[in-house]
Amino acid sequence: MSQAAETLDGWYSLHLFYAVDWPTLRLVPDEDRIQIVQEFHDFLDKLASVRDDHNGDHALYNITGQKADILLWVLRPEMQELNSIELALNKLRIADYLVPTYSYVSIIELSNYLAGKSDEDPYENPHVKARLYPELPHSDYICFYPMNKRRNETYNWYMLSMEERQKLMYDHGMIGRKYAGKIKQFITGSVGFDDYEWGVTLFAQDPLQFKKIVYEMRFDETTARYGDFGSFFVGHVLPEETLETFFRI
Amino acid sequence: MSQAAETLDGWYSLHLFYAVDWPTLRLVPDEDRIQIVQEFHDFLDKLASVRDDHNGDHALYNITGQKADILLWVLRPEMQELNSIELALNKLRIADYLVPTYSYVSIIELSNYLAGKSDEDPYENPHVKARLYPELPHSDYICFYPMNKRRNETYNWYMLSMEERQKLMYDHGMIGRKYAGKIKQFITGSVGFDDYEWGVTLFAQDPLQFKKIVYEMRFDETTARYGDFGSFFVGHVLPEETLETFFRI
Amino acid sequence: MSQAAETLDGWYSLHLFYAVDWPTLRLVPDEDRIQIVQEFHDFLDKLASVRDDHNGDHALYNITGQKADILLWVLRPEMQELNSIELALNKLRIADYLVPTYSYVSIIELSNYLAGKSDEDPYENPHVKARLYPELPHSDYICFYPMNKRRNETYNWYMLSMEERQKLMYDHGMIGRKYAGKIKQFITGSVGFDDYEWGVTLFAQDPLQFKKIVYEMRFDETTARYGDFGSFFVGHVLPEETLETFFRI
Amino acid sequence: MSQAAETLDGWYSLHLFYAVDWPTLRLVPDEDRIQIVQEFHDFLDKLASVRDDHNGDHALYNITGQKADILLWVLRPEMQELNSIELALNKLRIADYLVPTYSYVSIIELSNYLAGKSDEDPYENPHVKARLYPELPHSDYICFYPMNKRRNETYNWYMLSMEERQKLMYDHGMIGRKYAGKIKQFITGSVGFDDYEWGVTLFAQDPLQFKKIVYEMRFDETTARYGDFGSFFVGHVLPEETLETFFRI
Amino acid sequence: MSQAAETLDGWYSLHLFYAVDWPTLRLVPDEDRIQIVQEFHDFLDKLASVRDDHNGDHALYNITGQKADILLWVLRPEMQELNSIELALNKLRIADYLVPTYSYVSIIELSNYLAGKSDEDPYENPHVKARLYPELPHSDYICFYPMNKRRNETYNWYMLSMEERQKLMYDHGMIGRKYAGKIKQFITGSVGFDDYEWGVTLFAQDPLQFKKIVYEMRFDETTARYGDFGSFFVGHVLPEETLETFFRI
Repeated sequence: MSQAAETLDGWYSLHLFYAVDWPTLRLVPDEDRIQIVQEFHDFLDKLASVRDDHNGDHALYNITGQKADILLWVLRPEMQELNSIELALNKLRIADYLVPTYSYVSIIELSNYLAGKSDEDPYENPHVKARLYPELPHSDYICFYPMNKRRNETYNWYMLSMEERQKLMYDHGMIGRKYAGKIKQFITGSVGFDDYEWGVTLFAQDPLQFKKIVYEMRFDETTARYGDFGSFFVGHVLPEETLETFFRI
Repeated sequence: MSQAAETLDGWYSLHLFYAVDWPTLRLVPDEDRIQIVQEFHDFLDKLASVRDDHNGDHALYNITGQKADILLWVLRPEMQELNSIELALNKLRIADYLVPTYSYVSIIELSNYLAGKSDEDPYENPHVKARLYPELPHSDYICFYPMNKRRNETYNWYMLSMEERQKLMYDHGMIGRKYAGKIKQFITGSVGFDDYEWGVTLFAQDPLQFKKIVYEMRFDETTARYGDFGSFFVGHVLPEETLETFFRI
Repeated sequence: MSQAAETLDGWYSLHLFYAVDWPTLRLVPDEDRIQIVQEFHDFLDKLASVRDDHNGDHALYNITGQKADILLWVLRPEMQELNSIELALNKLRIADYLVPTYSYVSIIELSNYLAGKSDEDPYENPHVKARLYPELPHSDYICFYPMNKRRNETYNWYMLSMEERQKLMYDHGMIGRKYAGKIKQFITGSVGFDDYEWGVTLFAQDPLQFKKIVYEMRFDETTARYGDFGSFFVGHVLPEETLETFFRI
Repeated sequence: MSQAAETLDGWYSLHLFYAVDWPTLRLVPDEDRIQIVQEFHDFLDKLASVRDDHNGDHALYNITGQKADILLWVLRPEMQELNSIELALNKLRIADYLVPTYSYVSIIELSNYLAGKSDEDPYENPHVKARLYPELPHSDYICFYPMNKRRNETYNWYMLSMEERQKLMYDHGMIGRKYAGKIKQFITGSVGFDDYEWGVTLFAQDPLQFKKIVYEMRFDETTARYGDFGSFFVGHVLPEETLETFFRI
Repeated sequence: MSQAAETLDGWYSLHLFYAVDWPTLRLVPDEDRIQIVQEFHDFLDKLASVRDDHNGDHALYNITGQKADILLWVLRPEMQELNSIELALNKLRIADYLVPTYSYVSIIELSNYLAGKSDEDPYENPHVKARLYPELPHSDYICFYPMNKRRNETYNWYMLSMEERQKLMYDHGMIGRKYAGKIKQFITGSVGFDDYEWGVTLFAQDPLQFKKIVYEMRFDETTARYGDFGSFFVGHVLPEETLETFFRI
């Protein structure tokens, strides 16, 4: 019998990171640049209308440091919709000034390590549904990082019994709970979709909370022994109404 | 006596990944772009005629995220034909707008860990032939990743006995069988050809099945202890009749 | 109960590394180049006025070797201010000749491994405040490197008890004290913000002291067993009044 | 007493890999391109005249996949000659359309793990000379990969006794012998010259033999426990008389 | 008490590697190119005049293979002088055709693992001075590689006692002595300055000696258990009087 924990899977997820090519954008006459940004604005408005129908959500942030300037995170019911959105973005005029720097393909996931047994269909549970098909908080700050569970010679997550993993995940989850109200966390599963096994996306009004939760969890056995991390990206919200200013040189 | 399991080898395989250089393609007048895409279409038609004669197959997908825009997977009886096809593609006008991002050289392979003893020539077995010289399913979604078997200090796949490997591969195969009808899997061997030992190419109508099978297998000892993975690529089918739309800006 | 040591957190920190694109800068007529450098000068003057109000600090160095030509290190009370400064810099005309090569996002941090128990609010302690919101020394030479604490199978920093870590950090700190007066050290925490866990920034009049302290610490158990390092950057101060000469070709 | 096995060293070796910049080459008028290819042809003819005098050899192959388009492998008595040849190639007009992608510096090497004791000067032995200063077979297919012997904590090749290494190399060599007539193998040593310790260059009429030998050897203890591999390159011979066609767009 | 061995430190060291951008250099008219190379020649003459005053030294080599075309190694009493030289080089017209590929910042270092006790100031010892402030031999061939001492879980150089390290370094040194007269070796320390802990620069008339010494040392326990290596660069001397020919296309 398989030892794999069942997961509940929600919307497909695409994190798109871009650097702005400022030297080339500077060459664009003001009038043109305003039209280019307006076209990008219209594109975001179309995404927003899908959000209004609760058929997905998206978020736009300005990444701190040189890893990227922009993060557009998009959630949709079908993976193909993510392809279509990326393709449409690539064809926008603004894309001539956006250099792809990183992307991540995944799907909103709830592990049921902690689930109680029930006859209920979890996909009909309103609490579960709210987490699988979430409304993003659009807080002031975002944090994204991908991660793996280690499969080392001595400590191998995937060779632990279900009971051991449940115990470890329970303790891990207890730390997370302490940050309720300060941090809103979204786990996306990427096994089979991208190079790490999970993506973690955090929202907070105070970015120091990102450091506090990630640092505290590092001492938790689940992370200390079994966690491996990719790059960390932090950023500040980029409201659509500030786009014209953001791109104005 | 060598401990290496015999393999059955079918068509040579080349996965070609390209990003589209959209900013440069935008500069091409509509008329020219239509001719350029038509030339690419004609090229794919020639490939398709080889498929009709069952002397190979190919598949074209739109990769999700920034790792690539296009995956062209080509199968042919001789490795030299793969060189010729890549060279011909490089000389197409569309290639001026395609940036190579990754490629993988391998050969369709059936391991015979599970083979029964028989006097039959396996290459004459119609079931085997259908797997060595396959007709690709062209499902809605594709998943590709390269992988190795680990040679760590404690757990070293290549120091296990044939019996141990057979047992592990049997259990591994049992998981795969559960996905029959949902996933069509092709294993290509790349030892001596490319940087990993195998490539795995999966087709499915529902991309969530990629996550389910890869995640379930991760708890299987063969993978948990011995599997190492390269990058994962997922994508949506790009039918030839949509190429003109795909490249239109 | 969590084993994580509390930290005291001061100003947010952004290290920005750039290479100068000399071949393109050479094409700029003298008159233009002088204006471009003057605009950069004015930008640095605005940063300096914030320093005068003790609402942050910054430092500008010329990195030795090909990893970068310029390091601009900026400290500010809010992370968003770092985004704004980076954005403003990107929009300067000089940015057309600066190629981003590396950046690091963190926050000035004091670990309280060594803190005595007290009822005092450490943020009100003037010695603590001077270290959390520092005036940078602007010495002749700078050294920057990011680092992690190892989580290996046998030696895993995050599985040590608080007492063990306190003991190790005490010995580690004793080495640092020997360099008082020769080296000024700033630790910035980057857990949850960037790819390593800490950044170390050292200032000295004699760069040989960088080698001496880092080499001596390498034999200290904290570093020998648990330290992992990223890239090391060293550089010489680039006073604002020399900028015109620096950029003149 | 040193445990290092003596080696016999023959011609210096340089593997040069280039990608063709097809989009730029397409812009060259036919007449010019023909002259450019002719100049490359003349350069290869000069190399060939050295081969005729048996003062070196070279081989030209078309690499499969995107790692490179062309491999030029050159052997010469002095390392300086390799510098001269690379410099001359860089100055050819064709070099404007060749992008360097990888290179490898080494020297033809025979390990004498298996050598019997003798008073004979091995450099005077005609069999040895034929292997140190070889005539390359120019078979249809080539395979190149660099490799190291592992120095892990438990299994460290360089801490084995000479006897253990001799035993392992003997078994290893026995596998190689099975491929006599199918594969021609050249070992080049690169300790002190390049990033791996050895380069392996294989020639075969049937590329499947590359996979068979490398796969079979992977189960051999020498490789299974002690072998580490870099990138694998495979390619098809590019006869000089086909160059005009190869570069014609 | 610290276990760190004292080091004696001499001139600061900067290894600068550049690839030549031949396609762009080809576009330069002969007359201009001659002036550009003459300006580079004058720059090297200025460096040489410092050598004449024994306030530093430098060496210019042509690297074999694609890692670089040129290595300029500069030694100076102050680190700031290295910044000035690099800056001056970047502003030369030849720099428009030189692409930085790698650099290394370090300082000539003598470890005193093997030093006898004495009241003498080692910096006044003429043998020591000659090694700390050396005259470079400018032999036909050069070899450069950076290296670390390993800090693995079982074998950790920095957890060995001083006595154990002394013993290991003594044996290591004995191998080096066998190459006296064939190889001239310079060790530069880079702890705190660059990404590895040491740089090794070797000079020889016969490049095969590089392979022999590095290979023989690999079986020495110091290297076999504790040595980790970066990239190896080899090259042939590029006398200033050949520069015009070298850059002529």
